[in-house]
Amino acid sequence: MTEGIDAGRRAGSPYGLHRVLDPAGVLPQQAGCLDADPRPWPDEVVLDVERLNLDAASYRQLREEHGSGAAVRSAVLRIVEERGKMQNPVTGSGGMLLGTVRAVGPDSPLGLRVGDRVATLVSLTLTPLRITDGLADWDGEGEQVPCRGTAVLFGRSIAAVLPADLPDALSLSVLDVCGAPALTDRVVRAAGPSPSVCVLGGGGKSGSLSLVAARRAGAGRVVALVPFESEAAAVLAAGLADEVVIADARNPVAVAEAVGAPVDVTVVCVDVPGCEHGAILATAPGGTVIFFSMATSFSAAALGAEGLAADVRMLVGNGYVPGHAEFALDLLRAEPGVRALFEARERQTA
Amino acid sequence: MTEGIDAGRRAGSPYGLHRVLDPAGVLPQQAGCLDADPRPWPDEVVLDVERLNLDAASYRQLREEHGSGAAVRSAVLRIVEERGKMQNPVTGSGGMLLGTVRAVGPDSPLGLRVGDRVATLVSLTLTPLRITDGLADWDGEGEQVPCRGTAVLFGRSIAAVLPADLPDALSLSVLDVCGAPALTDRVVRAAGPSPSVCVLGGGGKSGSLSLVAARRAGAGRVVALVPFESEAAAVLAAGLADEVVIADARNPVAVAEAVGAPVDVTVVCVDVPGCEHGAILATAPGGTVIFFSMATSFSAAALGAEGLAADVRMLVGNGYVPGHAEFALDLLRAEPGVRALFEARERQTA
Repeated sequence: MTEGIDAGRRAGSPYGLHRVLDPAGVLPQQAGCLDADPRPWPDEVVLDVERLNLDAASYRQLREEHGSGAAVRSAVLRIVEERGKMQNPVTGSGGMLLGTVRAVGPDSPLGLRVGDRVATLVSLTLTPLRITDGLADWDGEGEQVPCRGTAVLFGRSIAAVLPADLPDALSLSVLDVCGAPALTDRVVRAAGPSPSVCVLGGGGKSGSLSLVAARRAGAGRVVALVPFESEAAAVLAAGLADEVVIADARNPVAVAEAVGAPVDVTVVCVDVPGCEHGAILATAPGGTVIFFSMATSFSAAALGAEGLAADVRMLVGNGYVPGHAEFALDLLRAEPGVRALFEARERQTA
Repeated sequence: MTEGIDAGRRAGSPYGLHRVLDPAGVLPQQAGCLDADPRPWPDEVVLDVERLNLDAASYRQLREEHGSGAAVRSAVLRIVEERGKMQNPVTGSGGMLLGTVRAVGPDSPLGLRVGDRVATLVSLTLTPLRITDGLADWDGEGEQVPCRGTAVLFGRSIAAVLPADLPDALSLSVLDVCGAPALTDRVVRAAGPSPSVCVLGGGGKSGSLSLVAARRAGAGRVVALVPFESEAAAVLAAGLADEVVIADARNPVAVAEAVGAPVDVTVVCVDVPGCEHGAILATAPGGTVIFFSMATSFSAAALGAEGLAADVRMLVGNGYVPGHAEFALDLLRAEPGVRALFEARERQTA
C-alpha cells in the first residue's frame, strides 16, 4: 500500500479523494474509512494534534449509549482506529481539533507554516486522524479531549490560526460554532426591516453568538428560549436578548406558547433531537428557520412543516460562510456578555 | 377509553394533538402511536380510504429490508396496526392517500362535503389510519396500495378535491409531489435573472415537474441529471431540459463532471441516500440547493458543505407552499411532455 500511495501522490485531490479507502469514489465525509497516514501529499498540511473538540450532539449520544467516561473513551478510540477519522456512527457528526502544523506540502494553498497553532474549521468527520496516546490524558468526561496524534488538512480544507489575544480553549470553543452567527447575520440582514428573531437554545455557545449576531444585524424583537431558570438568568444578566423564555424545545406546543407572537427568523441551536416542530410553530408564515443542531432530522423538518401547513423557509445550517472565523472571534471580543457566558461554561467543564 | 375520548371531544386541536396516544405532548408526526378511531372530532373530517400512495424512499427501504411483495405487505400492515398511521420507522417518511369523505365534523374548516373524492396533502406520517381489508387487494409490488379503511383529517390538514378532467391515479401521482415544483418556482424567481438550474433525478415525478417549473419561472440553462440512457432519452423526447446528462447522483465527482459549469440552483429529487455532496459540488458559490428527497441526511448536507468550503444555501424541501396543488395540476395540463412521462410511469407500474 505504501508504495501505491507514494506513486499516486502527484495527483492528490483538493477534496481529499485520494485519502478515501472505502468505499471508492465517495468524498471523505461519506467514507467508511480514511487513510490517516501522517505523510503529506503535495497540497496537504499535517498537524500534531493537541485536543479534539467533540460535537455536542455526538458526545451526548456517546454518553447515553456507553454510560461511564471510561466507556466513552474506549468508544472514541475504537471509532478512530476503525475509520481513520472521528465520526459518530449514530449522529453522523464529529467536531473539530486544535493542533500545531508539523509538515506543509509544497503545493498547499492554505498559507500555513510549520509551528503555527491552528484550529480546523472542517469537520472531524472528513479529517484523517490517528491517535497515538490511547487518549491517556482524557477521562471521557466532557467534549474537550486532550489527545496526541496526527491529522491531515486537504487543499480545500479550512483552518484558523489561533489568535494571540485570546486563550486557546476560548478560541477553540468559539471557532467550533462560528458558522452559526455568520449565517444568522446574513439571514437577518436579508429578512427585511427589524425582523423579530428567536434563538432556541439561546444560552449555549452557538445560541449566544447567534443572539448577538442577530441584534447587530438589525433584528427588532430578540427572544432567547432556554430550558432552565438558571440559564435564563445567565442570558438575561448577559444582556443578550429582549426576552428570555423558558420551555422544553422538544415540546412544540410549549415552545409556541412561550414565544408568543411568531417570529420572522427562528434559529435552532439545541443539540437534542425533536426540536423541529417547535421551531416551525414559533415561526411566522413567510419566515425562516435555520437549523444548526446536528441532531436535526431532515424528514421531521420537511414533513413537519407540510403537516402543519406552515409556509416557512427552512435552511440547513451550513457550517461554512466566508469570513466566519474572524466574524465570530470579533463578536466575542466586542460582546462582554457573550464572553462571560463562554468563560463560565469553560470553568464548568474544567 | 371511548368515554374519555367522547368527553374530551369539545376541545380538539387543529394540529391533532388530541389524537396522540404516545408519547404525550408531541405532534402527531412525532408520535409513536395515534388514535385512529373513525369517529370525527368537531373540527375533523373522516375519509373512507381507497388507495395509499407510499413515499418512494419508504417503499424502496421496505422492499430492500423485506424482499418479497408479500413480506412488504405484512410490514405495512404491522406498522399501521402498531402505530395507527403509516410511517416507515427507518426513513421516517410516509406518503399520502386517496379517499372519499365519509363524515364531516360541524366545525371543520376544510370546506369538504360527504361524498367528495379527495387526496390528502399532509403526510401519512401524521394521518390517523385504520386498515380494514388486510390489504387483500395489494400484492406488495409498487408504491400504490389499494386499501379499504378509514383516515382522519384535522382542522389544519390539507386535502385536494380530485379534478374531474384528469384520471384519479394521474392526479394522485402529481399531488404526491406538488410541493417540489411550487418551491422550485419560488426559488428560481428569486435567484436573479435567468439563473441556471440542475435537477438531480430529472426523469422522476417531482424532477420532471421541477424542470418545467424552473423553465417557466425564467431559468436560463436547464440541466436534467438522470441515471440511465433510457431515462435520458425520455426526458430529451419530452423536451423538459436544455441538457440531459447521465451520472450516478450518489457519486459527487461524477455529478460535478457531468453538470460541468456549476449552476445557480440545484434541485435534488433522487429518492436514494447519499446525493448531498454531488448536489453541493454541482452548485455555484452563492447558489441554492433544494433537497426534496426524503432520503436526505441533514448531517451529510451540513457537514458536507462545510467540508467542501462551499458557500451554498441549502433548503429543506417544505412540502407545503400555498396553492401548490393547483400549481402542479396546471403544469401537468400545460406540459404534454410531463404528462406523457407521468402516464408512461403509470403504465409501467400497472
